[in-house]
Amino acid sequence: MKLRRVGEDALLASLLRQLPGSRKLIGDDCAVVEFPGAKNLLVLKTDCVVEKIHFTSATDPELVGWKAMMRPLSDFAAVSATPQFALITLIVPAARSTTWVHKLYRGLKRAAARFDVAIVGGETSATRGAAVVSVSISGVVEKNRSVSRAGGKRGDDLFVTGRLGGSLRGKHLRFVPRIEESRWLTKHFRVHAMMDLSDGLGADLPRLAKASGLGFKIDKDALPLAPGAKIDNAISDGEDYELLFAVSPRDRARLERSWRKKFSKLPLTRIGSLTQRLNNSTSQLLRRGYVHFQ
Amino acid sequence: MKLRRVGEDALLASLLRQLPGSRKLIGDDCAVVEFPGAKNLLVLKTDCVVEKIHFTSATDPELVGWKAMMRPLSDFAAVSATPQFALITLIVPAARSTTWVHKLYRGLKRAAARFDVAIVGGETSATRGAAVVSVSISGVVEKNRSVSRAGGKRGDDLFVTGRLGGSLRGKHLRFVPRIEESRWLTKHFRVHAMMDLSDGLGADLPRLAKASGLGFKIDKDALPLAPGAKIDNAISDGEDYELLFAVSPRDRARLERSWRKKFSKLPLTRIGSLTQRLNNSTSQLLRRGYVHFQ
Repeated sequence: MKLRRVGEDALLASLLRQLPGSRKLIGDDCAVVEFPGAKNLLVLKTDCVVEKIHFTSATDPELVGWKAMMRPLSDFAAVSATPQFALITLIVPAARSTTWVHKLYRGLKRAAARFDVAIVGGETSATRGAAVVSVSISGVVEKNRSVSRAGGKRGDDLFVTGRLGGSLRGKHLRFVPRIEESRWLTKHFRVHAMMDLSDGLGADLPRLAKASGLGFKIDKDALPLAPGAKIDNAISDGEDYELLFAVSPRDRARLERSWRKKFSKLPLTRIGSLTQRLNNSTSQLLRRGYVHFQ
Repeated sequence: MKLRRVGEDALLASLLRQLPGSRKLIGDDCAVVEFPGAKNLLVLKTDCVVEKIHFTSATDPELVGWKAMMRPLSDFAAVSATPQFALITLIVPAARSTTWVHKLYRGLKRAAARFDVAIVGGETSATRGAAVVSVSISGVVEKNRSVSRAGGKRGDDLFVTGRLGGSLRGKHLRFVPRIEESRWLTKHFRVHAMMDLSDGLGADLPRLAKASGLGFKIDKDALPLAPGAKIDNAISDGEDYELLFAVSPRDRARLERSWRKKFSKLPLTRIGSLTQRLNNSTSQLLRRGYVHFQ
């Protein structure tokens, strides 16, 4: 069977099932593991962007670099970890100009500096195929502030940061991961479950609900829409890189009030709640977002 | 200017010069950094293999996976660190068979299991270009056992493990990194400088000498040759994945004796010594090994 008929989720799931007993604690968005002799947890994430799949040869290489760094950093926001170190792999056609590579690298550097991440290693290779930029991030999270997709409770309010939809019109190359917001959230509130929205609410919310063993209901009319976006865009476009998280409804008033004070320019919107496990017909109300290999 | 005219070393050096003040302690083979609240050091390394550059479409995918995992693990041997966690990025043409991917993954898993490394994360992407397997490893080393290329002292003996040359006849796809040997060495001896031989002694030894601010002399006739290899092969072929290290001549007798007892099947050979800094004519006696982009 060809890969494109399997789908990325299915392939990854199938590969991960083969793994021997893992020392990973949680690991939807990042791997969160013990580090010998430390009381904090080590957090690891790798991500890549591929020419002709995630960007075109005409895309400004500085924005490609920015995005390549910010994508895995968005996963650090998802688990409320502080990123610290980056390793970068550049796979570049030998005929590409050094100017292109230097601009790409400038984007990577600017993005890393935005979150005080040190680029501590690099690997380059030629290729006869498409350019690839792969970034691996390591960092740290306190044991009592690490969040996964799996801790949602029945009745929790579901919130999203920012506005959804239409990312491909530009945001997907210029977004700033919600690390500061996520760190603030876990400092001041009990966040039961959280993730970053990369494949679109329609694909990602069912994953959070499923990981928590629950269903969900959302108020589509409440979805915060990016300028020019419609509800379908907010559900299906993907690449929003906003936070989706679940907190107890008892925290709602205090959360909304202190959020407005702290992040006055960034909307925080209650879009629905976690419910008992859904039956299939209800869960299919949300269309799936973009999935690789399909 | 095109990349192929610059060369990988020059490109990396140029990019790394641009980096802001780095928190990296050493970093030729791996990045070795502080981890918050831990007394051991965090060790990071990423490496990739690219189809049509490092392997062909006809190469057994299980061996491709083995090599992709073992290459960065060889860098852990270089700094005497214990690898712990792996993140894997697979970039695969959508028309490739799932059988190919599963075999590749079996090779990755077997190699990781050989050193008790847990695969804790994965990322897959389609591509319209060549397949890429990128592996990022994190691990740990005690502060007093971390070794770099830079600590060699004038008069130190230079040793290599195993036999050199001819790796492309098969060893490059099946080698076992010298992690056990390296950990034993730093447990029982003061290793002043160490690296793994990936580009060939002719390219790698000058790097170790330069990092230590020294020159070197070698006895070419003493080089341990793989079956069928000649001296030129031992110097220039590359992909030996053996250790090259420097220790005080005062340790020579005890090292040779206890090595033979511990690793009876693996030769350890004194190939020369570190000297005062070389002038250019002498340093060019060694031909350079394989360098990407050239």
